[in-house]
Amino acid sequence: MNYDGFFSDAISRLWDERRYRVFADLERVAGRFPRAIWHSPQGPRDIVIWCSNDYLGMGQHPNVIDAMVETATRTGTGAGGTRNISGTNHPLVELERELADLHAKEAALVFTSGYVSNDTGISTIARLIPNCLILSDAMNHNSMIEGIRHAGSERKIWRHNDVDHLETLLQAVRPDRPKLIIFESLYSMDGDVAPIRRICDLSERYGAMTYLDEVHAVGMYGPRGAGIAARDGVMDRIDVIEGTLAKAFGCLGGYIAGSAPLIDAVRSYAPGFIFTTALPPAICAAATAAIRHLKSSQWERERHQHRAARVKSVLSAASLPIMPSDTHIVPVVVGDPKRCKAASDLLLSEHRIYIQPINYPTVPKGTERLRITPTPCHDDVMIDQLAEALLDVWDRLELTLKDGAIAGE
Amino acid sequence: MNYDGFFSDAISRLWDERRYRVFADLERVAGRFPRAIWHSPQGPRDIVIWCSNDYLGMGQHPNVIDAMVETATRTGTGAGGTRNISGTNHPLVELERELADLHAKEAALVFTSGYVSNDTGISTIARLIPNCLILSDAMNHNSMIEGIRHAGSERKIWRHNDVDHLETLLQAVRPDRPKLIIFESLYSMDGDVAPIRRICDLSERYGAMTYLDEVHAVGMYGPRGAGIAARDGVMDRIDVIEGTLAKAFGCLGGYIAGSAPLIDAVRSYAPGFIFTTALPPAICAAATAAIRHLKSSQWERERHQHRAARVKSVLSAASLPIMPSDTHIVPVVVGDPKRCKAASDLLLSEHRIYIQPINYPTVPKGTERLRITPTPCHDDVMIDQLAEALLDVWDRLELTLKDGAIAGE
Repeated sequence: MNYDGFFSDAISRLWDERRYRVFADLERVAGRFPRAIWHSPQGPRDIVIWCSNDYLGMGQHPNVIDAMVETATRTGTGAGGTRNISGTNHPLVELERELADLHAKEAALVFTSGYVSNDTGISTIARLIPNCLILSDAMNHNSMIEGIRHAGSERKIWRHNDVDHLETLLQAVRPDRPKLIIFESLYSMDGDVAPIRRICDLSERYGAMTYLDEVHAVGMYGPRGAGIAARDGVMDRIDVIEGTLAKAFGCLGGYIAGSAPLIDAVRSYAPGFIFTTALPPAICAAATAAIRHLKSSQWERERHQHRAARVKSVLSAASLPIMPSDTHIVPVVVGDPKRCKAASDLLLSEHRIYIQPINYPTVPKGTERLRITPTPCHDDVMIDQLAEALLDVWDRLELTLKDGAIAGE
Repeated sequence: MNYDGFFSDAISRLWDERRYRVFADLERVAGRFPRAIWHSPQGPRDIVIWCSNDYLGMGQHPNVIDAMVETATRTGTGAGGTRNISGTNHPLVELERELADLHAKEAALVFTSGYVSNDTGISTIARLIPNCLILSDAMNHNSMIEGIRHAGSERKIWRHNDVDHLETLLQAVRPDRPKLIIFESLYSMDGDVAPIRRICDLSERYGAMTYLDEVHAVGMYGPRGAGIAARDGVMDRIDVIEGTLAKAFGCLGGYIAGSAPLIDAVRSYAPGFIFTTALPPAICAAATAAIRHLKSSQWERERHQHRAARVKSVLSAASLPIMPSDTHIVPVVVGDPKRCKAASDLLLSEHRIYIQPINYPTVPKGTERLRITPTPCHDDVMIDQLAEALLDVWDRLELTLKDGAIAGE
């Protein structure tokens, strides 16, 4: 039987739908980020990255690199086992304490990724609650959707950020039935923010538990970088906060923070936690260094918001069609997958600017976009060059500007 | 509603079943492994680890540490994004080439863990094959079981390593129906090995595809460390080989290797690959260094087998009840969860020897054991001390020796 035929057919479907993805082979240079080397088919090229989720550039912070280097030198490269069988390492224990403190919860649990945190975390929590009803925001990330699917519990989807709809769904449930509300604080593709306080009001009124994904907010919001719930003064009203070490903290891994019994139960029952090798000590030490730095330093957060505001202001003045966003995410709409890919290709080949196209299924069809993520490391010259490059590409591809004009007309 | 009550109840059930696990907080010291520091409740203690899955001690190999340190210093700590959105880094691209070469396949794909490789890899492969029937060995690892479950395909379980039973199941399937045989080369809790050649014969006779998990064999078997299938000369007859970077290669992450269309399709469709941050460049570079070293160096493999043979010989001469095993895994049967835990506790507190108890559900009830994993770094004195310590513990707990005698009688 020709099994490869099945896989070739699957690939052909992606080409037909203009969804085939090509990965850019990048080499970052510590101290020079967001500049990097792109290993193009024609050889290495210097570029500027404008789409990294190393939102604060902490992956090149000297404290963070030093922690990784020192720990790898002292203890070696890997953990050597699962958490239970020889893999629990001292820097990992310290990291979990640091995270519990960050979120002012009794305990925290680290996973190999944010994806795994949501997948095995949500499914395990829901399975441990008899007859649990899950209420999920319509725009939740794939990792949360998979976690909900793997839970096997009944679920209802509420319209994105629509608390009235959420309340309607809650009203329809028997009061004594356990309910788990699952949502994000900052939705990464549009850059919009959930009405966390109002969701907490509802969860208390209707006796629901709350699970909040803060992966695009931790490190960047709140007085100590604990996220949007902390900024809004409602972190203590959230039962489970899920976060990542791989974005603003510049490393790898994910976590949940919550009550001691909840964390102990997930630790003891979650297959995606139990049966996998623990994070290396050097990664844990680096993440702890990033968290500690961002607990006290405000510079990165202030500069980050300032940079994002400047990018929005410059692109808006150039009539580029940026989507409104209250956060550091700056989406520029193209609205067509082929031209979105073409815009990205032109930016890279002609302007040495790397912004990956975001097409369906990551965003709905018709809203294809360039998703720009300014960091504290992007300077004014880079921002001006970004605007000029985008205008040139908009002109060449005859894309629509903000006032409805076609660029180049 | 008292949600914490659900989680406390779940924890109580574990205590009742004597399955509550306590993690040992360890600090390895590069250059001194298998010696390590145990952060006990009473303070730090020097111990010897006898249950690590850093099977060859590569986590402390100078080439591997140097690669991690050099790459972290040069490029920073994290990848900064998913594979598609700014996270594909040059050391990761090189690692995938190295893995494809190791297994003599057209391509390879790296995941954040071996667990994720199996979970999202198997489910994605099976979903891309219409009406796929999965045939799974009864002893497959949890990550494979979860991958099979998430595939949603029909599945049949064949008795562990029983090719006659597998053939009976294959005979009952319509010849034109796609079939996927999923198994491991080396089962890690018993240390037994699959009859890979005979399974390949069946897969060819009945037109089935094969997926082989080699996580407990890569680095350790075969002339270049490609695993048991390579040792047995049948690697080219396997469609997909899955492996880990976190055991014999001493780092973190997992992978699959196979045909170009298969790898491209998994790359393009697997949610657990697409929506998660890429492995850090420093981890990738370290793993590549370990693989390259073990492709040419035979010393670690030979010494590893020699150490395992010596442990078996010394423990057997002491009449300790080791399970027969053709590999580097040395299980010593206790047969009771409470005494298995007590034996482990005594070894650690009285003899400074760390061997985690392996209880249900990791192994069947009644076969609770101490699972010993000798490495090239364990010397003769350590082996003799291990035997003496085990005899002392067997004596104190009145456990059964090989000849049926109760120790201490």
